[in-house]
Amino acid sequence: MDIGQRLEQELEQAVGHAAGNDCPPKLAAALRDAVFPGGARIRPRLVLAVSNACGNKNAPAATGIATAIELLHCASLVHDDLPCFDNSLLRRGKPSVHAAFGERIAVLAGDALIVLGFEWLALKAGERLAPLTRILASCVGGPSGICAGQAWECEETIDIVRYQRAKTGALFAACTMGGAAASGFEPMAWQKLGFAIGEAFQVADDLRDVAGSPEKLGKPVHQDETNHAPNFVAELGFSGAMAHFEELLELARAAIPPCPGAEPLGRQIEAVSRSLVTGLSARTAAA
Amino acid sequence: MDIGQRLEQELEQAVGHAAGNDCPPKLAAALRDAVFPGGARIRPRLVLAVSNACGNKNAPAATGIATAIELLHCASLVHDDLPCFDNSLLRRGKPSVHAAFGERIAVLAGDALIVLGFEWLALKAGERLAPLTRILASCVGGPSGICAGQAWECEETIDIVRYQRAKTGALFAACTMGGAAASGFEPMAWQKLGFAIGEAFQVADDLRDVAGSPEKLGKPVHQDETNHAPNFVAELGFSGAMAHFEELLELARAAIPPCPGAEPLGRQIEAVSRSLVTGLSARTAAA
Repeated sequence: MDIGQRLEQELEQAVGHAAGNDCPPKLAAALRDAVFPGGARIRPRLVLAVSNACGNKNAPAATGIATAIELLHCASLVHDDLPCFDNSLLRRGKPSVHAAFGERIAVLAGDALIVLGFEWLALKAGERLAPLTRILASCVGGPSGICAGQAWECEETIDIVRYQRAKTGALFAACTMGGAAASGFEPMAWQKLGFAIGEAFQVADDLRDVAGSPEKLGKPVHQDETNHAPNFVAELGFSGAMAHFEELLELARAAIPPCPGAEPLGRQIEAVSRSLVTGLSARTAAA
Repeated sequence: MDIGQRLEQELEQAVGHAAGNDCPPKLAAALRDAVFPGGARIRPRLVLAVSNACGNKNAPAATGIATAIELLHCASLVHDDLPCFDNSLLRRGKPSVHAAFGERIAVLAGDALIVLGFEWLALKAGERLAPLTRILASCVGGPSGICAGQAWECEETIDIVRYQRAKTGALFAACTMGGAAASGFEPMAWQKLGFAIGEAFQVADDLRDVAGSPEKLGKPVHQDETNHAPNFVAELGFSGAMAHFEELLELARAAIPPCPGAEPLGRQIEAVSRSLVTGLSARTAAA
């Protein structure tokens, strides 16, 4: 079974656990809808890539934290799409959870996915549970996880570095730190790599928002402009943002700590990152 | 230091952890506002009472799960008060979180409190972390925790037993099971007691909603009628609901599993439960 299939299978098991038996039918359908069909599953793949580079010493713990991170990511998308935030009706090419099931079910589905992330980890992580739970929590809650990142958008003055780092970087840091910790490596050494990848992905996301097509992305474009969200293209221009993206890939390559599979990991990170901006150009941005 | 002070101190530490350092100021203030000043802290007190009755063999784990449960309870109140649910502007005698900080911060504060509950447990539970995390998650997420309870309200046909059990009973079951598990007792034997106490508290809450005063409760009354929420007084009448409350206390007393402190625990549960309905009568309900 390849990595993609293994991830989908474990996500199926996790969602089946929360949406099973006594679950109210609409909540069960919304949980499934929030997780399947998925996007590129970039975050859990990164966890497994790092764990493999570190010798894959505890495969169940690695797949457990990979699954938990993807569940938390899906939760954040469900809540981000709510009317009080982005009010987005489209996600991954189909109606967002609140568009399909209403706002109340969307709030609850997000909540239940957060809980499920921690629950799944507790079922899978074995002796690695405590450090992995702390890594996951610190990257999604306060003071500097995803919730905090989103909350910076509610402040009059935004600290842009903290904002980007918390909103996108933190969950990527959970991937690199979680993959390393699952294989018994000291997680803090892997944080910098996660932040660099996270910032590269944020830049790619901003570039796609101005130069991508809604059909290819499965969600509306030009959202940053509409929502006045701070973004790299507005700040640096299209080619400036592209140059910054290249710098970040360089920084990421240099930030990989010593480990048995450092070289293939570097190549993998570069290939996945580059695929995100393939075909984008200043011309499509102007269109 | 008495139990109440110990709980407040640990809640202070937990909230200080999530709202510290880099936390965006509004989110930090909302987290504090959602937890302090608290209500009666009935749930964490129940955890500690059960853990004591079981010999209090791991005080940090017991206080940890008590704190985590209270944080999850506060999270559920913040999300329950949102415009798409109860749209309540008042909580514990002051503006609800969304009334004070806006809807976006209220969604994020609830999310961050859920995360903090699991994070705090990971910092405190030591070797008891895995079973305590599973107990906490099963009582707040899907398929039959608080999220599921709330989601039953979105269904055309409500299964009233599952609804009440998930919405209120589950978190009380987390208290009794968590307190027992923290002291090394088999948690499942303690579930029935939690459900009985939870149902008694739900009946008391329904009685207070028709016969209490908003000043004393710190929140609006007659909400069940306004929101067409299923409730025991509408179903059984005032005196029928009072009789059912007494039956449930009897059931709870009988459900306490064998343990060193079973007798004082029974007296404590009865005293706290009765205090909730003191002074309520059919006369005040009619007023």
